[in-house]
Amino acid sequence: MIVVMRREATSEEIQHMVKRVEELGLKAHVITGTERTVIAAVGDKREETRESLESGPGVDEVVPILAPYKVASREVKPESTQVQVLGMKVGAGHLGVMAGPCSVESEEQIVASAHAVKKAGATALRGGAFKPRTSPYAFQGLKEEGLKMLATAREETGLAVVTEVMSPEDVPLVAKYADVLQIGARNMQNYRLLEAVGRTDRAILLKRGASATIDELLLAAEYILNEGNPNVMLCERGIRTFEAHTRFTLPLASVPYLKQKTHLPVVIDPSHGTGHAYLVPDMAAAAVAVGADGLIIEVHPCPEQALSDGYQSLTFEQFEATMKRCQLVANALDIGLG
Amino acid sequence: MIVVMRREATSEEIQHMVKRVEELGLKAHVITGTERTVIAAVGDKREETRESLESGPGVDEVVPILAPYKVASREVKPESTQVQVLGMKVGAGHLGVMAGPCSVESEEQIVASAHAVKKAGATALRGGAFKPRTSPYAFQGLKEEGLKMLATAREETGLAVVTEVMSPEDVPLVAKYADVLQIGARNMQNYRLLEAVGRTDRAILLKRGASATIDELLLAAEYILNEGNPNVMLCERGIRTFEAHTRFTLPLASVPYLKQKTHLPVVIDPSHGTGHAYLVPDMAAAAVAVGADGLIIEVHPCPEQALSDGYQSLTFEQFEATMKRCQLVANALDIGLG
Amino acid sequence: MIVVMRREATSEEIQHMVKRVEELGLKAHVITGTERTVIAAVGDKREETRESLESGPGVDEVVPILAPYKVASREVKPESTQVQVLGMKVGAGHLGVMAGPCSVESEEQIVASAHAVKKAGATALRGGAFKPRTSPYAFQGLKEEGLKMLATAREETGLAVVTEVMSPEDVPLVAKYADVLQIGARNMQNYRLLEAVGRTDRAILLKRGASATIDELLLAAEYILNEGNPNVMLCERGIRTFEAHTRFTLPLASVPYLKQKTHLPVVIDPSHGTGHAYLVPDMAAAAVAVGADGLIIEVHPCPEQALSDGYQSLTFEQFEATMKRCQLVANALDIGLG
Amino acid sequence: MIVVMRREATSEEIQHMVKRVEELGLKAHVITGTERTVIAAVGDKREETRESLESGPGVDEVVPILAPYKVASREVKPESTQVQVLGMKVGAGHLGVMAGPCSVESEEQIVASAHAVKKAGATALRGGAFKPRTSPYAFQGLKEEGLKMLATAREETGLAVVTEVMSPEDVPLVAKYADVLQIGARNMQNYRLLEAVGRTDRAILLKRGASATIDELLLAAEYILNEGNPNVMLCERGIRTFEAHTRFTLPLASVPYLKQKTHLPVVIDPSHGTGHAYLVPDMAAAAVAVGADGLIIEVHPCPEQALSDGYQSLTFEQFEATMKRCQLVANALDIGLG
Repeated sequence: MIVVMRREATSEEIQHMVKRVEELGLKAHVITGTERTVIAAVGDKREETRESLESGPGVDEVVPILAPYKVASREVKPESTQVQVLGMKVGAGHLGVMAGPCSVESEEQIVASAHAVKKAGATALRGGAFKPRTSPYAFQGLKEEGLKMLATAREETGLAVVTEVMSPEDVPLVAKYADVLQIGARNMQNYRLLEAVGRTDRAILLKRGASATIDELLLAAEYILNEGNPNVMLCERGIRTFEAHTRFTLPLASVPYLKQKTHLPVVIDPSHGTGHAYLVPDMAAAAVAVGADGLIIEVHPCPEQALSDGYQSLTFEQFEATMKRCQLVANALDIGLG
Repeated sequence: MIVVMRREATSEEIQHMVKRVEELGLKAHVITGTERTVIAAVGDKREETRESLESGPGVDEVVPILAPYKVASREVKPESTQVQVLGMKVGAGHLGVMAGPCSVESEEQIVASAHAVKKAGATALRGGAFKPRTSPYAFQGLKEEGLKMLATAREETGLAVVTEVMSPEDVPLVAKYADVLQIGARNMQNYRLLEAVGRTDRAILLKRGASATIDELLLAAEYILNEGNPNVMLCERGIRTFEAHTRFTLPLASVPYLKQKTHLPVVIDPSHGTGHAYLVPDMAAAAVAVGADGLIIEVHPCPEQALSDGYQSLTFEQFEATMKRCQLVANALDIGLG
Repeated sequence: MIVVMRREATSEEIQHMVKRVEELGLKAHVITGTERTVIAAVGDKREETRESLESGPGVDEVVPILAPYKVASREVKPESTQVQVLGMKVGAGHLGVMAGPCSVESEEQIVASAHAVKKAGATALRGGAFKPRTSPYAFQGLKEEGLKMLATAREETGLAVVTEVMSPEDVPLVAKYADVLQIGARNMQNYRLLEAVGRTDRAILLKRGASATIDELLLAAEYILNEGNPNVMLCERGIRTFEAHTRFTLPLASVPYLKQKTHLPVVIDPSHGTGHAYLVPDMAAAAVAVGADGLIIEVHPCPEQALSDGYQSLTFEQFEATMKRCQLVANALDIGLG
Repeated sequence: MIVVMRREATSEEIQHMVKRVEELGLKAHVITGTERTVIAAVGDKREETRESLESGPGVDEVVPILAPYKVASREVKPESTQVQVLGMKVGAGHLGVMAGPCSVESEEQIVASAHAVKKAGATALRGGAFKPRTSPYAFQGLKEEGLKMLATAREETGLAVVTEVMSPEDVPLVAKYADVLQIGARNMQNYRLLEAVGRTDRAILLKRGASATIDELLLAAEYILNEGNPNVMLCERGIRTFEAHTRFTLPLASVPYLKQKTHLPVVIDPSHGTGHAYLVPDMAAAAVAVGADGLIIEVHPCPEQALSDGYQSLTFEQFEATMKRCQLVANALDIGLG
């Protein structure tokens, strides 16, 4: 950490801060500049000490040098993590494709979707049984009944099942049916939930919150990893910005940035990331080109009749065309897709 | 709702959409413009139908006319709601002041804080026992022990106790000790938690998520109100923007905007809203001037030694000065403060 | 336009607004909903009337239906515009590549860069002679001397020259040497400058402002088009958001969105869009996959010695590798690159 | 500056960077941490060297310690600057109020406005003669004719005239009629324009760009100050964020933050900062309470008939009420208003 003193800081204040740095178990190096003094605090203490130093007398700001996350860091584990679930491989050169409807609506709907997305090349089936909805008046999901339908679809197709869990008390139930537990963007910092899924043996798909920084995303992953579950996939699904023509802004640069910082695989969600079905095929292809380890795409037998997210869902035909486009890019860049 | 058709929409597509609107129980008015056709869909159906219409053939966009929230709306209840807890009144001409440390650290610390903030004019004591922390390595709170210390501080001062609850399963425990249950910004869309606090008889302080729209905030309030708990205070605590010199950007215009849209009282948090102690006094005075119904401010006996948020906590002396400044503004504008 | 009246609007207010709509030369349709009345105002008047209606008595909001731009719109000209400059084709299935240093620093530097980028597959040379710099203390460019060096580089390689113009009075000078006049992001709404370049016969590369909406970008293009210059290329170079690990956030979804709304070609700038050289190759490949019509990339013989933007400039070797990767994607998707 | 090396940086790379730091005229201190090495570069070089060091081998990032601006800095001039124009004082305990219509539309309109705002307590008249409009189809201002009307209004009322200038070549003309030259938000980084107004002896009102950082605003001021014009007022008029219920987000915390960093006065524009007339009175009072040195407010005899910005303009009566509210707050806090 670098403690930057104000220009007018007194030598007493500087001495005080040196003492504080040492009390915190760090070594202090004082550097006297032409206008300001800075104190370099050396040692492996992070967030917890930073906050404390910031409120010291005469301190202008404290600049962290080390990343706040540890076990998620590529510095700690240089080789890329690959998450494997049934037939799906995500990471380390393999690109997994999770596709299916936003919500499970009926056995017929989910089984038909599973067959269609499998045929087009998907390696997992997504579908929501517990739905976090902005409005209390919107469809909230079929709950356990929906989970059973997902299990049926898995039996029929062999596809791994990806579904969201919203509350710590639902974790055992959802984990009974699902192969991958999804943490939605709204729950990225629901720490009790992160701990609960961290204690299961299911793979986790952790979605980035709409205003979360990358450091916050990696610290959320760290909550899960620290409970002993190493199978975490990160998912970029778009951030909230002033752009109004897309529902969120999907920053694909997160992929190469994350891959430099962490060993965990990175999945892109072009459906939520754009919010419009007609933008999904091009953004899916771009996600493959940028080096994503996975895609998660909303597909519905009849988007116009969907109980949720119809406007951003592809039809079976559109999904098939999207997969063909992604396959062309993946082949060109020597990426194993599907 | 207004269904805007694409310029090239065929008359078949327009007919199809008219039929869809009617199937959804709405009345359709077709308006043929010089360049486009729009269909006005009249009736009291909201979010649930909007999504569905958006994915129709030939549709460019669907523009909602009615607000998505109902019971929180001032259209439904024109008179302002006042939340009363022990001696504190928030709303309808009264400005409540909640102050205290970020975290409860010891009985001595919390009791001293309670006495100090009461003397300066606060009407409630804030203090965290369950702390949602970005990093799993940071101090997570004293939990039940902390709640007991808050109860002791209430006994000694008569101040109402405001404290955060993070998980549905903790609600009964926290409600046993607290007068006001705080929902943190990270949990604003933790719907199971909103439902759980909605089933208690405690007042609720609902913080706006850092990237939540005002509609989303009011819909989150609606989750609580719908469970039968009418004592909801909304709290603006800053949004995430590109500004880096403050931790969040505190948009005080939320106050007059919200007061037009909802009958619920609006509290301002200048501590999280700026992230720097030296910005708090001026922003607190501005919050009074803009018409806020309450303030929530972090105060610590010794910010430099605080286990969390020291950089944004006021000392007792700074808080006293801040309250004097707020009192001057409140008097000038005829607002009952404290 | 749809004029949405407040719930409590009186019938007098509604009548007043109907009259106002008609005074503005539009036809008014009144639709009485279950909760509110809306007035559909039909006819081809846009921004100018919207503002006026918004301040009417009893009006809640005015929702535009028609886009505010006209000649840039694909509705007006359905076929894609291709901009051709010397050997470069941008748009309508051809992807042009403009590459070179941020600033022209010496004849040696710019000529060497021109040869290197041409060899790697670029079709135009970029280089700044007039540099808009955030700080008045930073290098401001070689001005006319730099323009002459660019012309020399063109003579030696045949590459078209792309360079920025910052002020209306510099337009004749810059147009004398350059093939493509670049309008920088900071000047996207410098209307006198837009008009000045609109009166030249040079192709224009119009960069999106860091907080401009897409509508504002297209209206800026409209200022140029309206002066009689049809050769406008739009350039997405990233928007300002809360993301701090990249200098700007590069929303590639702008490409398919823009291509639906306008016939003008869309160029991506992954150098400014990320601000870090190591993120450029992957984002360039993604830009090709998403359907961009052009790329503009910063390349420098020795980024560490560059007088500006070294941190985001590729070396010759890195650029060559980037072009190979882009070529693979372009071939796979049947796009003519270079 | 602090040069942070990557964890895997070699000792050769570290030595290389030490040499680079010294070549740039700075002194290098190497600090070897438990995980990384950092190099403190001491001396008074700023932006220009930072960029250069960032692209060095093995460098992770470069953290600046000194602010990039100099003459605008309060470190250089600790006492607050007061700008005086005719009867208006802005800064150092005095709050100036500039009010009037968005656009000058007729002599009658501007003279009536001048009388009305003067009577209510304003100290300067604002009014646009050259209007930067997002759309080329919108009203562009009366130009010199409008300037003459402003001069007439000044003669009749004695109020100082504040009006925008959009292009370097218009500076002499506008300076002939105006007392304060306004640089609009869109032109904050139009450096040729900043230099041109810096060479006049008129006071300057420099508006913050909608996505400009505070450092960028102060560097823009520095362009003006460096030309020899010390009479610069900064104006916060809102930033672009995801908030859609206000046109911009007005961060009042900019006031105390700026006052710590710079000696220049800070003006608040609640009209553009909110975009809705009904939000202006409360935000104006809040601006006074937060410590602003000036206000600039749009007022129109008949907002509904205004040729621009009617939706955010106050009527004469609303402005009078707003001024009364501001006066109450100013009196309470001992601020000289008007």
